[in-house]
Amino acid sequence: MAETKDNKKLVEEITPMEEDFAQWYTDVVKKAELCDYSSVKGCMVIEPAGFAIWENIQKELDRRFKETGVENCYMPIFIPESLLQKEKDHVEGFAPEVAWVTHGGSEQLQERLCVRPTSETLFCDYYQRVIQSYRDLPKCYNQWCSVVRWEKTTRPFLRSREFLWQEGHTAHATAEEAEERTRLMLNVYADFCEEVLAIPVVRGQKTEKERFAGAEATYTIEALMHDGQALQSGTSHNFGDGFARAFGIQYTDKDNKLQYVHQTSWGLSTRIIGAIIMVHGDDDGLKLPPRIAPVQVMICPIMQKKEGVLQKADEIRDELIKAGFRVKVDDRDKNPGFKFADCEMRGIPLRIEIGPRDIENGEAVLVRRDTREKETVSFADLSRRVGELLESIQNDMYEHAKAHLDAHTFSATTMDEMEEILDTKKGFVKAMWCGCRECEDAIKEKTGATSRCIPFKQEKLSDTCIYCGKPAQKMVYFGRAY
Amino acid sequence: MAETKDNKKLVEEITPMEEDFAQWYTDVVKKAELCDYSSVKGCMVIEPAGFAIWENIQKELDRRFKETGVENCYMPIFIPESLLQKEKDHVEGFAPEVAWVTHGGSEQLQERLCVRPTSETLFCDYYQRVIQSYRDLPKCYNQWCSVVRWEKTTRPFLRSREFLWQEGHTAHATAEEAEERTRLMLNVYADFCEEVLAIPVVRGQKTEKERFAGAEATYTIEALMHDGQALQSGTSHNFGDGFARAFGIQYTDKDNKLQYVHQTSWGLSTRIIGAIIMVHGDDDGLKLPPRIAPVQVMICPIMQKKEGVLQKADEIRDELIKAGFRVKVDDRDKNPGFKFADCEMRGIPLRIEIGPRDIENGEAVLVRRDTREKETVSFADLSRRVGELLESIQNDMYEHAKAHLDAHTFSATTMDEMEEILDTKKGFVKAMWCGCRECEDAIKEKTGATSRCIPFKQEKLSDTCIYCGKPAQKMVYFGRAY
Repeated sequence: MAETKDNKKLVEEITPMEEDFAQWYTDVVKKAELCDYSSVKGCMVIEPAGFAIWENIQKELDRRFKETGVENCYMPIFIPESLLQKEKDHVEGFAPEVAWVTHGGSEQLQERLCVRPTSETLFCDYYQRVIQSYRDLPKCYNQWCSVVRWEKTTRPFLRSREFLWQEGHTAHATAEEAEERTRLMLNVYADFCEEVLAIPVVRGQKTEKERFAGAEATYTIEALMHDGQALQSGTSHNFGDGFARAFGIQYTDKDNKLQYVHQTSWGLSTRIIGAIIMVHGDDDGLKLPPRIAPVQVMICPIMQKKEGVLQKADEIRDELIKAGFRVKVDDRDKNPGFKFADCEMRGIPLRIEIGPRDIENGEAVLVRRDTREKETVSFADLSRRVGELLESIQNDMYEHAKAHLDAHTFSATTMDEMEEILDTKKGFVKAMWCGCRECEDAIKEKTGATSRCIPFKQEKLSDTCIYCGKPAQKMVYFGRAY
Repeated sequence: MAETKDNKKLVEEITPMEEDFAQWYTDVVKKAELCDYSSVKGCMVIEPAGFAIWENIQKELDRRFKETGVENCYMPIFIPESLLQKEKDHVEGFAPEVAWVTHGGSEQLQERLCVRPTSETLFCDYYQRVIQSYRDLPKCYNQWCSVVRWEKTTRPFLRSREFLWQEGHTAHATAEEAEERTRLMLNVYADFCEEVLAIPVVRGQKTEKERFAGAEATYTIEALMHDGQALQSGTSHNFGDGFARAFGIQYTDKDNKLQYVHQTSWGLSTRIIGAIIMVHGDDDGLKLPPRIAPVQVMICPIMQKKEGVLQKADEIRDELIKAGFRVKVDDRDKNPGFKFADCEMRGIPLRIEIGPRDIENGEAVLVRRDTREKETVSFADLSRRVGELLESIQNDMYEHAKAHLDAHTFSATTMDEMEEILDTKKGFVKAMWCGCRECEDAIKEKTGATSRCIPFKQEKLSDTCIYCGKPAQKMVYFGRAY
């Protein structure tokens, strides 16, 4: 790796994590060309390297959605003010942070329209028109779109005034079916994060305080970033019949009786790209799990001006593409050290180094991004070995992240313990809770940590609430969060 | 087909084309559940059957874009007023029809933001920041997104306040390269329309009057609808260095001299779904070309309550899916005649009828949507024959549309002739033109027809302009248009 280190200066420097994690994050985002600031305050330009990650996320999630019977559709970008106001809790949650359109061309609109911050009201308006009979149920629709929330402080991917996401909205005949769908989609998210993004997550339910505006229950998956802060990575909401009553969404059941539908919604956004960066990255830059990496293998030719080198590199690329891998050749007029460091900064899982001597020997050097392990592989064995290594990298990255999560998940039975963990060890704090809002508020006030979720896997750490000492109801994951 | 006709009443009626083409169009859109009106004036809800067509369009076009080196990205949804105003012609073209955001949450914005009607200004703003050297060129970026234009009168897919599209924006070192890209993308659109949508198009250049706001040249593909009206189906613009000068997008060339980039943009929208409907549809409903149809084959079981029928239908479906076709079984509790008519209304290219007697005989009945031809095919031969038939349907639908285009493309050398063609025969009118704006305006005024394009394939119909009699410069396609 000496060569790489020497050439480090050629690639722009990334601030070390330990020195300033926030700056490290910004440097990686910028230098791996994932996204750029724009002239539109609080909005980002998602550059090709970043968008290609989102495209892979879309492809993989969309396939999983469709396997559960979900169909895609598209709702309007605007919500008339009167429509937004139909469900009381929902409008209270969202109205303070929406962008308002007041003029079309040179004319003032009779009614203001907000740019959708989320589309429950639009789906309800539509479902109210098209659902008549039990035969019309269930409706399991999803849309991929952008939404706008007028945030004060913004950070690339993590919090911006506009972000991309998918929002699924379903309507069911019974409460049971809605609950089943809510949990099903949470599990789709969790499996996707663990299997594809190599990000282990904690699955659980939000407390009433942290619930989505208008929901009866919100389920969440919570991931732990490298700095010990939590990131909510996907949520799934059960609305019961609350929206159905507000919007009058009724169907005639088999006995010819009028019933309200039961609804759910669930979403995952470009925020998850922030999680990929902060779970896997290191001081040399981004580190992408092979299953989501737009480029899985970068071939770096050495002494590429020598006859036959570039040709061989292209040949290997074609062979590997044919074998089903995503491969590129870095044939820029730069020295190998620069290319190696550049590959690492961009998080490409595997790099293949190939020069005149390698070609003579009929072999190439393979270098893993995650462990930096090097090995020499004969040309004949290349595509088999690349497949094996990508598989290993994927698994090892998950195990590595899982070990970090486990090592940074703590239990506390006193507030002093909790504070100490949050300040020094950093990570999730499991603690018993009485179930009342006052304790939750007080814990946040005192420590800066919020309740991340009531995990499905409950443990009994003690009999009493960590804050008030009254009988405990649930074990909760607390954490400081993005 | 007697059975189908009898059961026609079971499926909601579609207004015959000849009676009222506009109402026929609306009926098809509504009854095939492609899109629904929304509570947001002028915006549509694209329903799953319509959106699935758009997904297939995206998949197919995106692949073709990427083969030419295009990368996807995502720009902000908003454009600050000052940014929109940087290129004079462009702002004049778009400012009258944009939606303005004036408030974020409860605060009034310091500067109004418009919801993007198109994103030239955003790409320019970005390119100005990231392009420095000839090594950074070309940039060939595209985004799939929604755009907003405040139209007064709207129609599903054809004209709505919000629509979905892709917009490609490229920056090049030389004028030649930009011109080459502009034409390349027009050809990508044309080939896509002809090969995938089975829609023949006329390729040509827009007159100065019909050019995109800010462009030096606009190329277009024009399709002819069943009622003889034209529909602009995709456009590609060469901006020269006009935007580059307005936005200061310069690069250092190999001789270390500062140069302006040359830019292009090109777009195709959900409008094309309107073209699919109006080119191929008939009085029984939609007619989808197999290559774009979300469901290519619908299996309609007959007497499905009899043992083994549904099971066999599912078996055939699985076999055909395995062979690479998009197949569904209509197992709703409805009579066969209803299902057949429903299949036709939804435009499914091929239907397979299968009942107890067919199963006994080891065969099924295949019915083409386009010609209504029926044939009996043995189970063993099914997937081969389905493949052949889908291929034939695709080709025949193109030939059918091509014959209609040819039969409705006329030449005129006098204004009386032109008017008569437009009023009675309906279609494109080829005519010679002197090249001046006044004649073009006068022709529109007199006939309601606009110049659709100056086709690449020129003919010499006469020596003089059809309107003023002065020496002719070009042959132009005129037509009334959507």
